[in-house]
Amino acid sequence: MTRRAMVRSVLFGAAALGMAAARFDTAAQEATPAATPAYGDPLPSWADGPLKQRMLAYVADSVTKGHPGYLPPNQRVATFDIDGTLVCEYPAPMQAYFAVDMVRQIGEADAESARAPVFQRVLAGEFDDLTTVEPPGFLEVFDAVNGDMTQQRFVAFARRWLQFAIHPVTGKRFIDMVYQPQLEWLAHLRANGFATFLVSAGSVDVVRAYSLPLFDIPTWRVIGTSYDYEFAVSGGKGQVVGTSQVVALTNKASAIGLHVGERPVIAVGNSDADLPMLQYANGAPTPVLPMLVHHTDAEREFAYDRDYSWSPLVAGLSDAQAFGFGMIDMKTDWLRIWPEEPSPPLLASGN
Amino acid sequence: MTRRAMVRSVLFGAAALGMAAARFDTAAQEATPAATPAYGDPLPSWADGPLKQRMLAYVADSVTKGHPGYLPPNQRVATFDIDGTLVCEYPAPMQAYFAVDMVRQIGEADAESARAPVFQRVLAGEFDDLTTVEPPGFLEVFDAVNGDMTQQRFVAFARRWLQFAIHPVTGKRFIDMVYQPQLEWLAHLRANGFATFLVSAGSVDVVRAYSLPLFDIPTWRVIGTSYDYEFAVSGGKGQVVGTSQVVALTNKASAIGLHVGERPVIAVGNSDADLPMLQYANGAPTPVLPMLVHHTDAEREFAYDRDYSWSPLVAGLSDAQAFGFGMIDMKTDWLRIWPEEPSPPLLASGN
Repeated sequence: MTRRAMVRSVLFGAAALGMAAARFDTAAQEATPAATPAYGDPLPSWADGPLKQRMLAYVADSVTKGHPGYLPPNQRVATFDIDGTLVCEYPAPMQAYFAVDMVRQIGEADAESARAPVFQRVLAGEFDDLTTVEPPGFLEVFDAVNGDMTQQRFVAFARRWLQFAIHPVTGKRFIDMVYQPQLEWLAHLRANGFATFLVSAGSVDVVRAYSLPLFDIPTWRVIGTSYDYEFAVSGGKGQVVGTSQVVALTNKASAIGLHVGERPVIAVGNSDADLPMLQYANGAPTPVLPMLVHHTDAEREFAYDRDYSWSPLVAGLSDAQAFGFGMIDMKTDWLRIWPEEPSPPLLASGN
Repeated sequence: MTRRAMVRSVLFGAAALGMAAARFDTAAQEATPAATPAYGDPLPSWADGPLKQRMLAYVADSVTKGHPGYLPPNQRVATFDIDGTLVCEYPAPMQAYFAVDMVRQIGEADAESARAPVFQRVLAGEFDDLTTVEPPGFLEVFDAVNGDMTQQRFVAFARRWLQFAIHPVTGKRFIDMVYQPQLEWLAHLRANGFATFLVSAGSVDVVRAYSLPLFDIPTWRVIGTSYDYEFAVSGGKGQVVGTSQVVALTNKASAIGLHVGERPVIAVGNSDADLPMLQYANGAPTPVLPMLVHHTDAEREFAYDRDYSWSPLVAGLSDAQAFGFGMIDMKTDWLRIWPEEPSPPLLASGN
């Protein structure tokens, strides 16, 4: 174990949060889907209109044998971006706050780690305001969080942080800032035999900390930036360890080729980084449903697109009509944004 | 499209096998599990004895709430090797025959491709007897098959070949040489909420050509050697293309970390290359069931272990007792080896 890994285990180990973990363990393991569609209308938080009709018709056709839009189950593949598509990402993605906080805590507890330049910059407050950060300059903060611990331990750290972390503007927990309409859409797709996947440029193991309790999506349906995992064996017992070698997800369609091996027919995103997923769907010989969330609601959430430096939407807006993207206008298409109930507990023992 | 890709599409394109494809399309898409367990005994092809009792008890405990062996659904993860574990791999894996045949056909049809040394060696008959081949020297044959076509097209090529290809010793189709007892074991696990994964050192996209019709396992639960997939867009429509950059699966446990993100509790293999999966399972705090198939049946299949150059079993035999591996003695534990019915058609349109 490296020194940084030891510091991590003191800071975030089971003892520190043992009581909370014990209390939440069982509930989290038995987590059920966060949304249950109302009887009669599977998408009650979506405003009636052409987009909702298109979504409902697409799913109905895909399960109707003999219909030209019928899809055999193995072709019912739906891929979703996360930040800005399923959860709030403004003014910065929750993974960015997580990374700054992890690095700060490690740096405050361990003088040796703190000597590294990236720790110095975090401790000096350079990343306290994430709205002024240029994302490429932030990559080393993400990298400083990774490495030198088992996958299970890293996921558990992320869970403990996410369980309580608060959004800097709204004061809500990050995990309560999921989009209720999307929970309904995911549940409706699954009820009709679609396999739903999360595809994020963020760390796959941070997403795996919440994918099941928040979205009813198991760890093996999560695709993201990962590490060069190492395998360590001692006395016949093995552990998978995330090294500090980051393997960035650079193209979402290529990543789907590797991990899914089947073209998505439904692809949902909110930024230009998601366009490869939508274009890949559009290359199918069958009917498809590519969609983009457009953040237009400054009152209930945030309004942004072209100028959002973390993940701008530019080409997506100009291509939308020509390529048949279903544009989700948050202000008019979503009757409500946030779920009525808080998200279920994340803490779980792992294995 | 490269010249080699063009030759491939002439050789294996839809036109050449159009009639067969049309005939099989619907059936393959609707493929059902290859095995349905008999009522009362979910493992009728397994001989009664301590191993079968251990398997049945493990599964029964894992779904019994309150039992110390109970596992929440997200921890019910079972990973299976393919060659020699689920299908016959002797005297050489079916992927090796596929590779030689693909390279030979391309070489015979295209003088330019044929000039490359590896094509020359295949055309000169150097790999006609795969029992005399040293596997490391064979890697370039595998590599020569890859590259320069969409993932869907490559999978379709593999399907067309596998549909009819015949094992050189038994005269049966390769796809009919699946192990009936393992089909029952996979089905029993799934009936009890286990997620089943295939983890092979072979090409992931060849396995994806048969995983659903043969094993009821969708493409996204297949892990294997892959390519550096590229994404190509034209007119808003995208394609995922397998390049010739091979990304070899070198450690099965690390690959599970990347693709599954949850530790397996059941891991089944038949060679030392599978040991990382079994060791990773053994590192769990919960009860686990690591298993090895031992090929002991020279009459009904083949008898081999230490001296099988393609994938020897040496350490697995010496470690078995100390580390609690459930050893499957093919001769005594399996009442039958092959299914009564031929495998369902593989040909499918893809997407």
